[in-house]
Amino acid sequence: MYRTHTCGELRLEQKGQTVTLAGWVQKARKMGAMSFIDLRDRYGITQLRVDETCPEEVSKIAAGLGREYVLQATGVVEERQSKNARIPTGDIEIRLTGLKILNAAQTPPFTIEDESDGGEELRAKYRYLDLRRNPLKNALMLRHRMAHEVRNYLDDKGFLEIETPFLIKSTPEGARDFVVPSRMNPGEFYALPQSPQTFKQLLMVAGYDRYFQIVRCFRDEDLRADRQPEFTQIDCEMSFVEQEDVLNLFEGMMRHLFKSVINVDIPEKLTRMSWYDAMDNYGSDKPDIRFGMKIHEITSLVQGKGFSVFDSVEYVGAISVPGAAQYTRKQIDELTEWVKRPQVGAKGLVSIRVGADGIKSSVDKFYTSEDLAAVVEAVEAKTGDLVLVLCGAKRKAQTMLGVLRLEMGNRLGLRDPHVYAPLWVVDFPLLEWDDETQRFYAMHHPFTAPKPEHLELFYSDKKEDLERVCANAYDFVLNGTELGGGSIRIHEADVQSRMFEVLGISKEDADYKFGFIINAFKFGAPPHGGLAFGFDRVCALFGGQETIRDYIAFPKNNVGRDVMLDAPSRIDDVQMDELYLRSTAPVK
Amino acid sequence: MYRTHTCGELRLEQKGQTVTLAGWVQKARKMGAMSFIDLRDRYGITQLRVDETCPEEVSKIAAGLGREYVLQATGVVEERQSKNARIPTGDIEIRLTGLKILNAAQTPPFTIEDESDGGEELRAKYRYLDLRRNPLKNALMLRHRMAHEVRNYLDDKGFLEIETPFLIKSTPEGARDFVVPSRMNPGEFYALPQSPQTFKQLLMVAGYDRYFQIVRCFRDEDLRADRQPEFTQIDCEMSFVEQEDVLNLFEGMMRHLFKSVINVDIPEKLTRMSWYDAMDNYGSDKPDIRFGMKIHEITSLVQGKGFSVFDSVEYVGAISVPGAAQYTRKQIDELTEWVKRPQVGAKGLVSIRVGADGIKSSVDKFYTSEDLAAVVEAVEAKTGDLVLVLCGAKRKAQTMLGVLRLEMGNRLGLRDPHVYAPLWVVDFPLLEWDDETQRFYAMHHPFTAPKPEHLELFYSDKKEDLERVCANAYDFVLNGTELGGGSIRIHEADVQSRMFEVLGISKEDADYKFGFIINAFKFGAPPHGGLAFGFDRVCALFGGQETIRDYIAFPKNNVGRDVMLDAPSRIDDVQMDELYLRSTAPVK
Repeated sequence: MYRTHTCGELRLEQKGQTVTLAGWVQKARKMGAMSFIDLRDRYGITQLRVDETCPEEVSKIAAGLGREYVLQATGVVEERQSKNARIPTGDIEIRLTGLKILNAAQTPPFTIEDESDGGEELRAKYRYLDLRRNPLKNALMLRHRMAHEVRNYLDDKGFLEIETPFLIKSTPEGARDFVVPSRMNPGEFYALPQSPQTFKQLLMVAGYDRYFQIVRCFRDEDLRADRQPEFTQIDCEMSFVEQEDVLNLFEGMMRHLFKSVINVDIPEKLTRMSWYDAMDNYGSDKPDIRFGMKIHEITSLVQGKGFSVFDSVEYVGAISVPGAAQYTRKQIDELTEWVKRPQVGAKGLVSIRVGADGIKSSVDKFYTSEDLAAVVEAVEAKTGDLVLVLCGAKRKAQTMLGVLRLEMGNRLGLRDPHVYAPLWVVDFPLLEWDDETQRFYAMHHPFTAPKPEHLELFYSDKKEDLERVCANAYDFVLNGTELGGGSIRIHEADVQSRMFEVLGISKEDADYKFGFIINAFKFGAPPHGGLAFGFDRVCALFGGQETIRDYIAFPKNNVGRDVMLDAPSRIDDVQMDELYLRSTAPVK
Repeated sequence: MYRTHTCGELRLEQKGQTVTLAGWVQKARKMGAMSFIDLRDRYGITQLRVDETCPEEVSKIAAGLGREYVLQATGVVEERQSKNARIPTGDIEIRLTGLKILNAAQTPPFTIEDESDGGEELRAKYRYLDLRRNPLKNALMLRHRMAHEVRNYLDDKGFLEIETPFLIKSTPEGARDFVVPSRMNPGEFYALPQSPQTFKQLLMVAGYDRYFQIVRCFRDEDLRADRQPEFTQIDCEMSFVEQEDVLNLFEGMMRHLFKSVINVDIPEKLTRMSWYDAMDNYGSDKPDIRFGMKIHEITSLVQGKGFSVFDSVEYVGAISVPGAAQYTRKQIDELTEWVKRPQVGAKGLVSIRVGADGIKSSVDKFYTSEDLAAVVEAVEAKTGDLVLVLCGAKRKAQTMLGVLRLEMGNRLGLRDPHVYAPLWVVDFPLLEWDDETQRFYAMHHPFTAPKPEHLELFYSDKKEDLERVCANAYDFVLNGTELGGGSIRIHEADVQSRMFEVLGISKEDADYKFGFIINAFKFGAPPHGGLAFGFDRVCALFGGQETIRDYIAFPKNNVGRDVMLDAPSRIDDVQMDELYLRSTAPVK
């Protein structure tokens, strides 16, 4: 061992002891005849003192140090003259008797401080230096703790962590697979798993009863902001359970994580909000319930008064923004432009000011003050509030109102990342109708079970009936973000056949695409269900951050490149030949 | 929940309680007016009884059951008439009041018993059924427990589990990489990691101090028996440590695993055997020390006596096989043929019988009885033993003797898989000379540090000096199998340069192949070292098995195929086009 203690553990109790530390130079400074070195390791920072009592050799070495040099330092623990209350070791310093440079360091291209002066690109290239900074170190330590507590909790509940393969079979459904050419099977490819979905269902067929895995998954998508081509899931499945069993167990897990990792208490029993309520009240299937500002439908209140915009739409809805009545014309114009951007997609915005001097709106010429008062009452606006109204097709208008609501929540500072408001969204529709292809799609996946009480509807031939079928599907939502989701699966052959029929998948097609799992289900599949959490995002949200990149040790950029490694890259012709491949890519 | 209890937990204490179980029909049998069903789940087997007191509906359902049907059964816990001491629930049975078929099952293509009647191929195709059998279930449960205890131990020691990327850069050195074409970066490929070696070293540069990961690795090799293209490692690295720190910590981990998982005590301090001693005494760098039968060099005793075979070789060595003096001529001929197979490669075998009636050898005409007595004494043979002698170039002859020794150990039953004899092999040579290419290769990898006391030799120009340089490298060996290995790494730039020089790697070449890690090391690399264990094999050996396949939920066969999934497979032209690829494989 190069050290007797870490840089984070010495206190006044060790005063007088001779100790050896090892770490990196955070800072070295000279003050008259003395010099001080802040020595850093993963565990903290300890101040080293060099003065006239130190061996000459030590002073000489100390004079030549640069940032990030790696040192081994021996000395005596002494009480500091001027203490530093901001660090746990701030009461002591080490008066050096020995000092050795274990490794010199070039000056890093950016500062290794909580707030670095390096740009994103530069820090990505030198990720190993960026990782020295506290925010990233704390992120990865939180991630370790989270994973460990997930495993403790699930192990305690009898779950087995079972590793599933990474080199699997490509399936034509869903997002794009990454594929891996097989040298030993010329012309053939493995696929990297988008999730272990089929394997965990096979494990239930195999009787494993309670399975989990913290596992890497892969998706070859055009990357949107804050998506990664490889990501980590907490993947779980249970047998002989109903929906409520799954929800209870995993909200128990989340409660354990909140308490054990960040010491936050969440409610004894989380809200289960139906998808319909979530859409109606929050305009989102992942509602942020840290704040109110709920959406209210006012269609019947505003139609038939001669305002053709409202008269011609399916739905009119509004939110009441607390204390925003003093918004200026300019601010409202800006908001109107904001909702008209393609990301929101509204045609316009109607506003109603609830001032101390009365109610004023941008549509005063169509509505009497009684009309407006009725709207104000319906949306539970109080004096000083600003009512914002959008309209359109029902779900679309609600979604726009939901986006506007989040924006107003941000502007009013109602979305503190260290306030945690988790809930379950349940009762999702089983099927989504697609107008373009004129067919139903599975909202989750084709193995999700309809609710038993909706089985009759599920066998109906009418589109309206099928649209009303709810799934035993559920999402875990935190602060406006979906952290996980899952469902009770179909385990009965005839229900599964009906599902394929509804989705317009022929028996031949189903056999081709899902053959081995359909086959497996013939040999005694138990009732089962499960869910998966997006682990990167769970960690980020627990850390109070929106972006996942800091919670991944070596992330890719938004075109899927690792700029530190400079990957992906070309491979040589010999390897291409071995894989029976030719590239048709344009030569750069 | 479909059940109140599992099939493994009911005892006489629950007598009289009404319970509900769910599981699979292991066996259903009729005995006169009564019938019995063995209901199985992951936790055990419980006997269900159907008699004249049961509702008619129950009897009707019970009469139609087949193997592996999935049932939900309700009834009263009663004491059995004839108890079954072999299972924990053997004192009770459930007299049924309700019975429901949750799912019917086709008759499985092989029996779901500890010893199945299914062949390997068939069981692989229906892996989800094979996984229902106890030996496989116990293997995966052991694996879960092992992983969990590894994590508990390392977390307790301050290690952080940090996930490293799977989509990385292909490196031209070492075994063949699996590659992944990048759609977003046309013509370029990611590689799947053969190990996280560079990442863990970067994490040390980043100051993470103690890292581990239980992680999948990939190697596109021509598969030898019992190798898998994807395999799992326990990967670890530590900073500011010397070799002895690493050995102590990880033998602590293994001790914890032995005790907590299979309740085996291993010695307080494991043997550290030098590579030289291992080769000299056991003819292997992974000696099985469960039994003696050590190799003894007898070159000087047998040369110069006119036996030209021995006179012309570098080395003559022997083992003494206890109690084998009564081997017949035929048996010895068979052994001679055995060592002459290409897998061993000996030219012949000399044997010396140490009988009660004196010492007899196959080379009596060259050696006096005093000569032979001296050999017998040197190899510590006792009356009744058989001395077997091989010769050749030193290391080659030792290796052959090592293989023969293991074979004799097997034949004599000295290699009980439930006896565990772990040790460390240390002091490996740093470099291996390759006659063909007339250059040195790194025995572990080019980042392995020479022993500090051999630094002078390391800078010598003489081949003989360089061959004598030992590495700070170590292997963890159990029962003749290498379970893990690692080294202290080079952290000083000039030692690393010298290493490349010795290996004949030019500066340009080194920069191209190892550029980003060499660069990282310029910014303050701490002294560090680590190791990795082959987790699949660790699990298999703890389970007392030689093959790893049963310890992997969904393994590949020996041409890298998953016969259940039928992967790898062809992908469609659209996807090939998106990846800018054409296949040149012959059309099947």
